Amino acid sequence: MTTVGILGGGQLARMLALAGAPLGLRLLVMDTVADACAGQCAPLLVGDYRDEAALAEFASRVDVATFDFENVPAESAEWLAQRIPVFPSPRALAVAQDRLAEKTLFRELGIPVPEFVDVPTRAALEAAVAQLGTPCILKTRRLGYDGKGQFRIRSAADVGAAWDALGGQVANVGLILEGFVAFDRELSVIGVRGRDGEFRSWPLTENWHVDGVLSASLAPVACTPALAEQAYAHARALAERLEYTGVFALELFCRDGLLLANELAPRVHNSGHWTIEGAETSQFENHMRAVLGLPLGDTGMLGHACMLNWIGAMPDAAPVLQASGGHWHDYGKSPRAGRKVGHATLRAGGPVELARMLHDVGSALGRVEQVAPVIGSLRSRG
Amino acid sequence: MTTVGILGGGQLARMLALAGAPLGLRLLVMDTVADACAGQCAPLLVGDYRDEAALAEFASRVDVATFDFENVPAESAEWLAQRIPVFPSPRALAVAQDRLAEKTLFRELGIPVPEFVDVPTRAALEAAVAQLGTPCILKTRRLGYDGKGQFRIRSAADVGAAWDALGGQVANVGLILEGFVAFDRELSVIGVRGRDGEFRSWPLTENWHVDGVLSASLAPVACTPALAEQAYAHARALAERLEYTGVFALELFCRDGLLLANELAPRVHNSGHWTIEGAETSQFENHMRAVLGLPLGDTGMLGHACMLNWIGAMPDAAPVLQASGGHWHDYGKSPRAGRKVGHATLRAGGPVELARMLHDVGSALGRVEQVAPVIGSLRSRG
Ligand SMILES: Nc1ncnc2c1ncn2[C@@H]1O[C@H](COP(=O)(O)OP(=O)(O)OP(=O)(O)O)[C@@H](O)[C@H]1O
Ligand SMILES: Nc1ncnc2c1ncn2[C@@H]1O[C@H](COP(=O)(O)OP(=O)(O)OP(=O)(O)O)[C@@H](O)[C@H]1O
Repeated sequence: MTTVGILGGGQLARMLALAGAPLGLRLLVMDTVADACAGQCAPLLVGDYRDEAALAEFASRVDVATFDFENVPAESAEWLAQRIPVFPSPRALAVAQDRLAEKTLFRELGIPVPEFVDVPTRAALEAAVAQLGTPCILKTRRLGYDGKGQFRIRSAADVGAAWDALGGQVANVGLILEGFVAFDRELSVIGVRGRDGEFRSWPLTENWHVDGVLSASLAPVACTPALAEQAYAHARALAERLEYTGVFALELFCRDGLLLANELAPRVHNSGHWTIEGAETSQFENHMRAVLGLPLGDTGMLGHACMLNWIGAMPDAAPVLQASGGHWHDYGKSPRAGRKVGHATLRAGGPVELARMLHDVGSALGRVEQVAPVIGSLRSRG
Repeated sequence: MTTVGILGGGQLARMLALAGAPLGLRLLVMDTVADACAGQCAPLLVGDYRDEAALAEFASRVDVATFDFENVPAESAEWLAQRIPVFPSPRALAVAQDRLAEKTLFRELGIPVPEFVDVPTRAALEAAVAQLGTPCILKTRRLGYDGKGQFRIRSAADVGAAWDALGGQVANVGLILEGFVAFDRELSVIGVRGRDGEFRSWPLTENWHVDGVLSASLAPVACTPALAEQAYAHARALAERLEYTGVFALELFCRDGLLLANELAPRVHNSGHWTIEGAETSQFENHMRAVLGLPLGDTGMLGHACMLNWIGAMPDAAPVLQASGGHWHDYGKSPRAGRKVGHATLRAGGPVELARMLHDVGSALGRVEQVAPVIGSLRSRG
């Protein structure tokens, strides 16, 4: 009987637990709060990731550890890895935690990236804005998520406001300036690498963000085979260089048919939630399989799938439950502005059928704006 | 936040818990033993179903109750139903608990049944065997499962042995004699009825038993549309007469193209496990939807699916995990002779592909006998 420990007890841990149970494994989730939603589906250990006693208890109760949360302190991950197997490795985690390190690695691997400059001081910010031109985006190097820790600089006149907003964090988390990419669309590759080095990826996903937070994902993407192959090759190169074990997401901007890497998420990813119903094997199950050293499952798609995120509060479930191919995911969280509380996946045999489902569900829920870009993408396939 | 209570904490409760979580509900499982396998996926209350204090605690912690186990004492179900909503109703449970009551109901509804006679005494057994002829089967009216509590009477000379084997139970659970049906095949309908009366059924399933225990299930079945319609009509008539809420199975014998009802299982059923991957909505999710009064999900199939039961101990997982379309279900139980410890579902686009998968998995696991009849059925479809 193998027990898998998961650091972080949010919806990702919850869905990992639900996917892991049929594999016969036991779970232990660790989170800083007692009402972490994964605790509804698996035993929960409440503790601070920096508390050695709590980590020691966690380590003593599990055979292998993984993450639902990439911002577990690097030292905690290292501490654990000296005692039990930890996947992905602390090294991969450390790279993915730092936008500067990850973009430097992308560049080393020949993966195109937006222009970027490290910003250790206000003077460096001024020089960087002059160098990259505007618009550009100032971001914290570490601990950003869902578009938090970012400031858009539209013209040189915004430099002062940007520094006022984020300069105070430079000592703690560092800052990076990125050139603004006027992308045509945002894509992601969800990839998985086994303990034996086998690599697989799910079909490319197109993503739409609202206020920096993922709003909708669609797979498969209408694109040339060459573009998809390029994306998979980037993901594979990264996984191999990092000797990565488990599932990860590579977020990409696509501009004029060229891919630019935005970031690496060293965990199952919101843009891969559609794989639960839309793929032969979900990202959650394959992550567990990878961590356990089991054979990876088929990542092929079943039809066309769109995931809609529910932010802040759950909408009425009925329109999704009534739709043939509609699947509901309520994370069991209490509502709070900006919080990811659930999602729905709509799956259909083809793009026309999926567009019609999205139209019906969007109208019934009064969420026409959320579904509109996805319908637009599906309709443009002719 | 709705909490659903489940009486019985075996693999059915476990799979109900895994299917219920995405609907956002909370769960509480009650079982007589502390290591009930559903307790790995949901909070577990250990107690005896006849203990009023335990039942009262259960009732105080849940909003609605259902069963993974049909042999919960009728009085316990009644006691609960006076306090909280219970689905299916104690009345439906009581009918399904008693082979005499259920067969009498089948007959009332015009559903053909094997010949049967109530057997209150040894003299009645002799008369019944004379009336039905041999072969015939003596069964306990109540508390039988997986072929337990049955004695096959091959000739009148077996009457003494049959009475010796089961006569001692006549006072407690009653006995019934059934004519032996030389069936061509065994089928089951998994049906679901919502709180609002909506009825749906999954495609008909063919089942193979070994030593009275389910070994393999296959869906869809190759049969005339008329036969399938007949089976669905029987299931629907039963559900409506019992004002049934939730999922149930109607087990049928098919002989010369005619259906005879064997029994009604008032719960999710082993022959419906393939619906997890093989149908748009699983029996487990639809049972939860029904119990909660939510709209029922689409019961349509995704391809062709075969479920293989693992009895006693789990085989090597690798051949199933490696097969594209292979899905693994380990119930987290310790091995024990005759115990249902897990299953696998193989799903494929068509019968030829599924037969090939079954052949490969059966060979790799040294279980050629288990898969042979399923392959035979698939191949006979030409
Ligand atoms: N250089 C850029 N050019 C244009 N748009 C950008 C750029 N960087 C970020 N964005 C926009 O902001 C969104 C969030 O940015 P980013 O992925 O860097 O932040 P994050 O906080 O890590 O988000 P997440 O948690 O969703 O991964 C991107 O998906 C994109 O829509
Ligand atoms: N009257 C009959 N004629 C022929 N075979 C029978 C008859 N009754 C039972 N059987 C065989 O025995 C198997 C188990 O019988 P039955 O369904 O009555 O028992 P059970 O203990 O309730 O089983 P389960 O728990 O699987 O429903 C049947 O599936 C069938 O293969």
